[in-house]
Amino acid sequence: MTNVAIIGTGHSKFGSRTDVNLQELAWEAVKQALEEANVEQKDIQYFSVGNVGTWSAEPLPAVVIGEYCNLAPSGTMRVEAACASGSAALRDAYLAVKSGEADIAMAIGVEQMHQSPNPTVVEMIGRAGNYFWEFENFGLTFPGYYALYATAYMNKYGLKEEDLGKIAIKAHHYGALNPYAHFQKEITMEEYLKSRPVAWPLKLLDSSPITDGAAAVILASEEVANKYTDSPVWIEAQGVGSGTANLSRRTDFTTIDAARMAAEQAYRRAKINLDSPWKEIDVADVHDCFTIAEIVAYEDLRFAKRGEGLTLAREDQTYIGGRIPVNVDGGLKAKGHPIGATGVSMAVSLTRQLLYRAPNKGMQAEIRNGRALAHNVGGTGHYAYVTLFSTRRPGL
Amino acid sequence: MTNVAIIGTGHSKFGSRTDVNLQELAWEAVKQALEEANVEQKDIQYFSVGNVGTWSAEPLPAVVIGEYCNLAPSGTMRVEAACASGSAALRDAYLAVKSGEADIAMAIGVEQMHQSPNPTVVEMIGRAGNYFWEFENFGLTFPGYYALYATAYMNKYGLKEEDLGKIAIKAHHYGALNPYAHFQKEITMEEYLKSRPVAWPLKLLDSSPITDGAAAVILASEEVANKYTDSPVWIEAQGVGSGTANLSRRTDFTTIDAARMAAEQAYRRAKINLDSPWKEIDVADVHDCFTIAEIVAYEDLRFAKRGEGLTLAREDQTYIGGRIPVNVDGGLKAKGHPIGATGVSMAVSLTRQLLYRAPNKGMQAEIRNGRALAHNVGGTGHYAYVTLFSTRRPGL
Repeated sequence: MTNVAIIGTGHSKFGSRTDVNLQELAWEAVKQALEEANVEQKDIQYFSVGNVGTWSAEPLPAVVIGEYCNLAPSGTMRVEAACASGSAALRDAYLAVKSGEADIAMAIGVEQMHQSPNPTVVEMIGRAGNYFWEFENFGLTFPGYYALYATAYMNKYGLKEEDLGKIAIKAHHYGALNPYAHFQKEITMEEYLKSRPVAWPLKLLDSSPITDGAAAVILASEEVANKYTDSPVWIEAQGVGSGTANLSRRTDFTTIDAARMAAEQAYRRAKINLDSPWKEIDVADVHDCFTIAEIVAYEDLRFAKRGEGLTLAREDQTYIGGRIPVNVDGGLKAKGHPIGATGVSMAVSLTRQLLYRAPNKGMQAEIRNGRALAHNVGGTGHYAYVTLFSTRRPGL
Repeated sequence: MTNVAIIGTGHSKFGSRTDVNLQELAWEAVKQALEEANVEQKDIQYFSVGNVGTWSAEPLPAVVIGEYCNLAPSGTMRVEAACASGSAALRDAYLAVKSGEADIAMAIGVEQMHQSPNPTVVEMIGRAGNYFWEFENFGLTFPGYYALYATAYMNKYGLKEEDLGKIAIKAHHYGALNPYAHFQKEITMEEYLKSRPVAWPLKLLDSSPITDGAAAVILASEEVANKYTDSPVWIEAQGVGSGTANLSRRTDFTTIDAARMAAEQAYRRAKINLDSPWKEIDVADVHDCFTIAEIVAYEDLRFAKRGEGLTLAREDQTYIGGRIPVNVDGGLKAKGHPIGATGVSMAVSLTRQLLYRAPNKGMQAEIRNGRALAHNVGGTGHYAYVTLFSTRRPGL
């Protein structure tokens, strides 16, 4: 076992990226990461590719990307954990280094959803749970799934549409500051409330968009990392959980068990106080595929007690300067959610935060503890990954 | 870092398995592995699922399988390395244990190809390389790809159709002894030579079938393994490589660079003599998706010099009792090739070989060195994984 450091990060422009193909899109992020780490392709001993890609022409993208980015003959695989596929890629590369199988590895997340028409993509995402039980019979789409959470939370804790609006407004506020974001304009509460319903109470402005994009991080073992950088960001701990495929087997739609479990696992491994983890974390990226998901995440991550996530939103406690800044890169909602890239994008954003390299001053959180958290959910808790990043070298 | 042992193995019946759905098929193997290891689901801290599945209704199978097999809330991901996806699943679970992230993990490989009609499956496999460059323009199917290897090898080294026939006959000989195999009947050279051409010189009897099946192995760290078993089989070393997606970038169609590289990596890690590795290995499973692939594998694995793989075949040196027994479970050719399951199936077969638990006496190799090798190729060397298994505890 060795400590594992991030020594380079790369991020493409997110948005509708039909100007490039899948491998060109990946290369935008890979190139930036190689340059930042001052590493050549031949130094990358292993790379993993996070991609769902049911909407793409390349059904098996890892080797196509490896060839184009000149990463072959290094070993590789493609990994999938639905909307957490990027975190799965990070995990695979992390395990390769931590286990001693590779000294330097790369995690690439990429998704080009605009290769298929939107209704196809909506169907494919809807099928991300349990096809035969749910999608074939009921045709539930993803906004529909998360509307179940929103209505359950409204019923139990008195959530209002305006509370969800606060989340959307914050996302767009920070998205407007992030040159990589899909959406770069502020929205008002009035615009939010007038936004077209998608699955009540969720509106278009509650929803992350269909986005294309790529992100990459280069990981190195402790010994090697020190040769490449004076400012490593360490992967301190990771928790990982899964839930039932079938939502009728879930008992509570105001929390995501897999995420709660993954968070606890990560906190225990990093010896973080479970009563107030937000005191030890400077900035977080959480999986806000819909605004309600961010409020649930506050609670699953123990940034607030059960039922009090909405209070954090109401009191603007997750802006920079509040209890804990969340999604100050615009989040899935405004930065965009290219499914396979999202988890790696979180790692890029947070690494840059910890090193005071956020692309814009207005989106730089204050770093006191040197620790950041990424929360990435696949489906509605079908998969969950919680990763802690730290500027302090972890004990082994 | 810790040594990693296989403490349980499971294997479904391979064949046309439309009598079950994907998760039921996986459960056949998972159940057997749990019983063999005397482990309960709650003890499995992490599981990975190898599956390509473009032909299945469940586009994201890992959580569906996790739910059905009662493995949730443990962490998981689905991995894909084309026809080497099973080895990718083994690698992911192996890294989870070796890195210390899990004490007990499970690798599950499963594929149910008969969910789609055969022509769809043939198309999907054909697209496993580089869609835009090759499949869209030229429509090459997989027998076509491997026919390139066969004709190149014929041209360079004087391979005859009868040499390929020897491989097919051996596969069916051992398949007939294996109760899990898709095909369980012997074939004669006459039948082979009369077999319908698919892509000259490859015939139907040169080709692995479209198969459904599942396999599972349970891995444990050294400390934990000793609590569960007195006969651990260790993962001694693994090599992993990749090749170009685009075949026009390959220079030599008589060898697979990625496999050669993966083998060398594994041999170096296990301190095996590169000049005569077959002297230190008792039995091997190699990726004989087509008969020519087995002959190329003999050379890529250094069981024979370049151009002499066909001599091993001619002299029956890869039957039990020969230089090195290969595919004595029937191989992909007769046991079947359910893509995501194949790599895990190899691990199951070889573990049972090393422990003298082959399902039939006639297919049990003599174990002298306590070491077995699995060679699993995705595509035509797009991915390659070579894994060494040993009854001797590796040094760290």
